Amino acid sequence: MQNINVVIWGFGAMGQGIGSMLLEKEGVTIKGVCDLNPTYEGKSISSILEKPSKVSETFVSKEIEELLTSDVDVVFLATDSFTKKSYPKIKQILEQNINVISTAEEMAYPYASEPELSKDINELAIKNNVTVLGTGINPGFVMDLLAITLSGAMVDVESIEVRRVNSLSPFGKTVMDEQGVGISIQEFEERIKSDSLAGHVGFKESVYMIADALGVKIDHFDQQMKPIVTSVDRKSKYGEAKKGNLAGIDMTAQATVKGKPFIDMKHPQQIEPEIEGTETGDYIILKGTPNIEMKISPEIEGGLGTIAMCVNMLPHVINASPGLKTMIDLPVPRAIKGDIRKLIK
Amino acid sequence: MQNINVVIWGFGAMGQGIGSMLLEKEGVTIKGVCDLNPTYEGKSISSILEKPSKVSETFVSKEIEELLTSDVDVVFLATDSFTKKSYPKIKQILEQNINVISTAEEMAYPYASEPELSKDINELAIKNNVTVLGTGINPGFVMDLLAITLSGAMVDVESIEVRRVNSLSPFGKTVMDEQGVGISIQEFEERIKSDSLAGHVGFKESVYMIADALGVKIDHFDQQMKPIVTSVDRKSKYGEAKKGNLAGIDMTAQATVKGKPFIDMKHPQQIEPEIEGTETGDYIILKGTPNIEMKISPEIEGGLGTIAMCVNMLPHVINASPGLKTMIDLPVPRAIKGDIRKLIK
Repeated sequence: MQNINVVIWGFGAMGQGIGSMLLEKEGVTIKGVCDLNPTYEGKSISSILEKPSKVSETFVSKEIEELLTSDVDVVFLATDSFTKKSYPKIKQILEQNINVISTAEEMAYPYASEPELSKDINELAIKNNVTVLGTGINPGFVMDLLAITLSGAMVDVESIEVRRVNSLSPFGKTVMDEQGVGISIQEFEERIKSDSLAGHVGFKESVYMIADALGVKIDHFDQQMKPIVTSVDRKSKYGEAKKGNLAGIDMTAQATVKGKPFIDMKHPQQIEPEIEGTETGDYIILKGTPNIEMKISPEIEGGLGTIAMCVNMLPHVINASPGLKTMIDLPVPRAIKGDIRKLIK
Repeated sequence: MQNINVVIWGFGAMGQGIGSMLLEKEGVTIKGVCDLNPTYEGKSISSILEKPSKVSETFVSKEIEELLTSDVDVVFLATDSFTKKSYPKIKQILEQNINVISTAEEMAYPYASEPELSKDINELAIKNNVTVLGTGINPGFVMDLLAITLSGAMVDVESIEVRRVNSLSPFGKTVMDEQGVGISIQEFEERIKSDSLAGHVGFKESVYMIADALGVKIDHFDQQMKPIVTSVDRKSKYGEAKKGNLAGIDMTAQATVKGKPFIDMKHPQQIEPEIEGTETGDYIILKGTPNIEMKISPEIEGGLGTIAMCVNMLPHVINASPGLKTMIDLPVPRAIKGDIRKLIK
């Protein structure tokens, strides 16, 4: 059996992580990488990743059209956070009869924010006999799929509380900017006004994934963004926050069902949380019959987690029936220790 | 759309729990219950469960043949722990073109102990165009599926440690006997010799489910059983252990891959563990990239958990392609809050 052939579109932190992970796996070949960054153009991925390739060498190209050939099984699309921005790229891939795994946060449950585009993507995928999946650590796993999975051991669920308290220290400059690390309170307020502070993208996706999985209808969804102001100077590899400025952002969300609180989410993200005594972790508290209180401490590392989720879902996406899928449609994710080809049905 | 019709075969603690849970759900009718216990014969399930039925009343029958009618969608089979003993019943159900959800521990991953019977069951199910699933809290969830799911967020896994430290206090007389609660050390040794002490059934199933999910080959599997001797008198609703006798059994298992330890399982079960300071909980420690340490404390209650897993998998089993399935083949379990019929594709 031939190796699984994949293309990586977008060679930033996530795309590179996916590439690096794939180089360690058996039965898969990175056929092409597309990125517009001029410093990568024409370079081999081994040289960029500083890691040898067991199979043939791959070079970064700007021309996606040349890479979407008939022997490609899956494209990892790691270019955007939003469904609307990913849509033309997804369409282009699907029309070449190639499966898509997207890192875009909204694509983890695109029905939440883009029901019309979701319908289009589903129809396009079915028409071209391929599958589309959005995944990642959050949304895609910690604050949705894991809570859903745990609820499977419950006779009834009354309420769901999920907290992800994580460190931004391992992340790069893009994340520092998106999460407002180092900015002043005044700048925070200005960026809120101009709607230019991303914060966490994914609460709505997580909440609607949970609601649809459990079969309840959300009648109200709300989310808030607050600054995490540091009282000491903090510094990480790519971020710096002086005393009095933002170490990160505290985001919260709530959803009600039949007028009662049903889902409560808390997701404070900051650099160097331990410097002021914050214990990081992932916490899921399900009230019902029976109660379940889960804790993962420290939190599952976000960058590695997203990379792993994307690569580990590769066989499930190839095996799936055609259409737009989400994590609740497919078998549980799992690490891949053996030859990926053996997992294809 | 008509209600989903189910039959419960075996109306002990698990069968009754499944019945009680189903009575609370929308879109499902318990068409029949089969049990050989003469005290239940001809009685209504509402009177046994002390719970009203929203739909028509169901009476316990001894004659399974009469219950396996063409309008039945799923039989919950809650009669045995072992595949071999369940096999004739599973065969009988499948031959009537009815799906099966089994509580038998070995059926959670029958390939581990009964590869030939598994093949037969799979072929029978495909021939009759229906699906068979074994599930439960353990095996079926805590010590296997949950560890597998968490590994999905990992780039690589080096080793897996799972501990389930639980209380037997909520369980009935059958479990007290199976777990040796109250017996002397001498009796424990005699029952070990005569192979009449069940202990936990499921380590082999959990270990092979994990190994197959991750794509590794187990080269050695071993398990041990030790008495948990109480140093104080202990008493639960259905169990009693005098000082010096067994409060329960401590079971452990190990599996190696390529000669190295890969899976390590610890499962001490006893009545009233807190009386001697034992904190109960479910613990999963995955070493690799990244490490993941999960804790659920107290442990997910075993009886309710098994009941919930069986009922919550109902729509997945109806939706599945024909054949013998395990928890790693189907979408993630989830609690059912709405009408079950809406979950059928």
